[in-house]
Amino acid sequence: MERSSVETAVLLIQCPDQRGLIAKISGRVHGFEGNIVSLDQHSTAPEGGLFYMRLEFRFDPKLRDRARLEAELGALALELSARWTVRYASQRPRCGVLVSSQLHCLLDLLYRHSAGELPMDIACILSNHTAAERWALHYGLPFVHVPANAANREAAENEILGRVGTSTDFLVLARYMQILSPEFLVRYGRDIINIHHSFLPSFKGANPYQQAYERGVKVIGATAHFVTGDLDEGPIIEQMVQRVSHRDDVDALRRKGRDLERMALGHALEAYTSQRVIRDGNKTIVFD
Amino acid sequence: MERSSVETAVLLIQCPDQRGLIAKISGRVHGFEGNIVSLDQHSTAPEGGLFYMRLEFRFDPKLRDRARLEAELGALALELSARWTVRYASQRPRCGVLVSSQLHCLLDLLYRHSAGELPMDIACILSNHTAAERWALHYGLPFVHVPANAANREAAENEILGRVGTSTDFLVLARYMQILSPEFLVRYGRDIINIHHSFLPSFKGANPYQQAYERGVKVIGATAHFVTGDLDEGPIIEQMVQRVSHRDDVDALRRKGRDLERMALGHALEAYTSQRVIRDGNKTIVFD
Amino acid sequence: MERSSVETAVLLIQCPDQRGLIAKISGRVHGFEGNIVSLDQHSTAPEGGLFYMRLEFRFDPKLRDRARLEAELGALALELSARWTVRYASQRPRCGVLVSSQLHCLLDLLYRHSAGELPMDIACILSNHTAAERWALHYGLPFVHVPANAANREAAENEILGRVGTSTDFLVLARYMQILSPEFLVRYGRDIINIHHSFLPSFKGANPYQQAYERGVKVIGATAHFVTGDLDEGPIIEQMVQRVSHRDDVDALRRKGRDLERMALGHALEAYTSQRVIRDGNKTIVFD
Amino acid sequence: MERSSVETAVLLIQCPDQRGLIAKISGRVHGFEGNIVSLDQHSTAPEGGLFYMRLEFRFDPKLRDRARLEAELGALALELSARWTVRYASQRPRCGVLVSSQLHCLLDLLYRHSAGELPMDIACILSNHTAAERWALHYGLPFVHVPANAANREAAENEILGRVGTSTDFLVLARYMQILSPEFLVRYGRDIINIHHSFLPSFKGANPYQQAYERGVKVIGATAHFVTGDLDEGPIIEQMVQRVSHRDDVDALRRKGRDLERMALGHALEAYTSQRVIRDGNKTIVFD
Repeated sequence: MERSSVETAVLLIQCPDQRGLIAKISGRVHGFEGNIVSLDQHSTAPEGGLFYMRLEFRFDPKLRDRARLEAELGALALELSARWTVRYASQRPRCGVLVSSQLHCLLDLLYRHSAGELPMDIACILSNHTAAERWALHYGLPFVHVPANAANREAAENEILGRVGTSTDFLVLARYMQILSPEFLVRYGRDIINIHHSFLPSFKGANPYQQAYERGVKVIGATAHFVTGDLDEGPIIEQMVQRVSHRDDVDALRRKGRDLERMALGHALEAYTSQRVIRDGNKTIVFD
Repeated sequence: MERSSVETAVLLIQCPDQRGLIAKISGRVHGFEGNIVSLDQHSTAPEGGLFYMRLEFRFDPKLRDRARLEAELGALALELSARWTVRYASQRPRCGVLVSSQLHCLLDLLYRHSAGELPMDIACILSNHTAAERWALHYGLPFVHVPANAANREAAENEILGRVGTSTDFLVLARYMQILSPEFLVRYGRDIINIHHSFLPSFKGANPYQQAYERGVKVIGATAHFVTGDLDEGPIIEQMVQRVSHRDDVDALRRKGRDLERMALGHALEAYTSQRVIRDGNKTIVFD
Repeated sequence: MERSSVETAVLLIQCPDQRGLIAKISGRVHGFEGNIVSLDQHSTAPEGGLFYMRLEFRFDPKLRDRARLEAELGALALELSARWTVRYASQRPRCGVLVSSQLHCLLDLLYRHSAGELPMDIACILSNHTAAERWALHYGLPFVHVPANAANREAAENEILGRVGTSTDFLVLARYMQILSPEFLVRYGRDIINIHHSFLPSFKGANPYQQAYERGVKVIGATAHFVTGDLDEGPIIEQMVQRVSHRDDVDALRRKGRDLERMALGHALEAYTSQRVIRDGNKTIVFD
Repeated sequence: MERSSVETAVLLIQCPDQRGLIAKISGRVHGFEGNIVSLDQHSTAPEGGLFYMRLEFRFDPKLRDRARLEAELGALALELSARWTVRYASQRPRCGVLVSSQLHCLLDLLYRHSAGELPMDIACILSNHTAAERWALHYGLPFVHVPANAANREAAENEILGRVGTSTDFLVLARYMQILSPEFLVRYGRDIINIHHSFLPSFKGANPYQQAYERGVKVIGATAHFVTGDLDEGPIIEQMVQRVSHRDDVDALRRKGRDLERMALGHALEAYTSQRVIRDGNKTIVFD
């Protein structure tokens, strides 16, 4: 196999557990000359559980093109009653970023992306504020200003959809302070990752640092999660926490929280774009 | 000052903030020949806030006996509209421990106590189970079996009060799985410290690890807090957290949580018995 | 497969990486009716690296007895130029514990064992002090007092070897303050796990908390590692760390360090006895 | 006291401990109408130790100008054999930043500064590479390119000194990969803060992530410290740590380490510029 012609793919698969699954799946991949680079699996119970697998493999598209490979994987999945996706390293997912006036998560994301930590492309940055524009410019990325408020939500969401509907594979809400409507979620139909500035399920909704201050907690957190129709209730991808004390007023919590938010979002995106996240119901499997 | 005659005291004080407070209080202590060993203070705002102070000082009881010292502190407190307590190192607080069948927090507490980490005396161990008895025996501590359930709560609480009413300064619920009635709390009238097996305010009530598993959190926690009439709502003293993953089933969360519970309770008790905790409303000031 | 007759085994294997390894090994296990429960693997490089695998599987000893299973695994290993071990859940490893006068790690280990966290048997507790004896008694475990010092090391080590030479599969040094000679290590010839009270490679040798205090570090640690002929240089299994400050004198560091030591040792033993640790040269692979 | 005319000052003081120190110092500040906002102190021993204090107070420069205030503090310090500094909130320290080609610490510092987290002014950015230039431009800060290598060190250091000698109060080495000569340190004569990409004292010198990988540690770290003539030996201000595993190759350690480096440097600078760091010999006192 010449190196130049080799393609790397990641198969994510989930199905009811059954005997011989690992041997069967890895055998099948081996069968079409795929070279397994790494395999991670999880089963919720030794018998009768659910089975999740991440399989990273290399193959030669000249010997087996993608269409045929996907046909074979599809047939296998049918046998196993499995849900599956396959992604190719050469085909980076395209991301749309929504942000409001607080830019720390966006700047962190842009830095990580420029440093090669996030295998994705950024299609555009959208904001209901203008503060992010000079950063988009600095990084040479398209910027779209979409004024949004309670009154014009439908129009704003239509504009956003117009921009990201076909050009992105997923969205990131990097401290986007507008609530997206259930209709938007349905129409977009792909993954949306949000960073919430609390240790969910504590302190949902508005002003979580104020809530944390009032409750007198000794640890604060931030949570990166998939967005669902239930506010702050979607499957959690990553959480980061930090000790605080009585000395920390609400502003200090916000300042410390910013570090947590950008770390949690950065780690979540790194896992997601590396195809290490399987979403199932209200939970996630995040392979290391 | 001869060393043998020296007494160490800790003054905890809280009052409305005002100019010159630190100078005034420390000057007063200096005035009765007290030697300030350490001073910690916290103010919620530069002006118009609340003021909290911990003052550890040495004094010679031959020159100034406790009664006189307390009279002077009382007079000062009156001037400042302050709430205050003073504790002497030679007068260790007496603790009653309530526990059910899970012994990890009790054993940890007993170990820390025997290692000299907790400046307190253990008056007795009470349990609605018998599993703790052999440990009480092993450590040479009184054990009282108080069968307790929903039906006999009043009688059980009466028996507990009979045992700890005059012999203890505070109670520790070291995984005691019975709810104490509001009447008990009023009648006992002193501090009660509980360890709750979740990162409060998430997952109050029963079976928090099951709740955490179902929510799919990526970090679990344990919380040591003062008991109030509102279940799992009292002022938080200490919280410990740890990363978990999809690999952790409910049993694994329980096992990992045990480490957090005993650490959180141990640290909370170490701070409390060292007179480093000021309780104010629904919050605590915990000086390092 | 009837449940009662099912045996669970863990295969740990390491070999040069090559194409098709996972398919080959899992296929072979599937071939002898083994049902793979979980599979973890690690490869140091996509090509030309080293390959490590942990395979947990169930099999029916009536269909395939251990001797035959091991013969098949041995043949496979030969093909792959692999080092391998297989352990059966029904055959718990036997542990000898050495301890000196500080008992916190021993007590923690005994508690974890009694709580079912450590799938191993404790063959005996050996100490150059007598403080542990009452604890051995309390837990119903054999205790051997082996006075040891610089002068009688050879005799002491002979006595230890006489006690653990055939009755144990590995040793734990739970704060054993005597250095074991290279001859002892060779003669014992099995794994020995030590807990060192620093964040290795910082602060090797004697009195690490004093060293940490003098260097003014802001984080302290503890390290569980395999013992080799080079003091404090063996492969690291687990490390735990905690923030400290200028307020912590050497005694405070020791006290905080005790928590780290017992956590690090406990987690290392849990991984080791669950057959999740592969030792290779000066490193370890620790599967989650 | 009208708010508009009020000045906030921080006094840092260190001296041999003695009876009545806190009362004396706070009384003196109260004496010149200073209103103590917060007081932190630390003593290394109840008797015969060293005493450190941070005192934040407000005063009215119209009633007591700085010169007079400093004269009074100087007289007090003389009485106490104390070293001391006083800084005014209205007089932000001026910082020079040196950086090479890795920009993550610089970008983080610039972000934190722009977010108001660091009460300092950035006088200029100096680099032996040109990568930072566009960022200096973006933030509107002076940039100086100082080509530096082993051959021209003296000339380069002269140029740096020419630029920062009078315009800065301290320097930050935000991943500056050139070693500054002892002569430079003496001639500059003020604080220099470095971020080292390991958990010191482990892995001093070049390529610490490679060293960490080879040693097989399970936790990596980063250390912010004052620069002294001994490489990587200066007083530690802050350390951050993170778990790693066998899965992390050197590149992964570098990537994870970048998060630690910018957090450690950010927190160290936040403490330093808030006048919460006292440097004494090879250690620091860092008040929370």
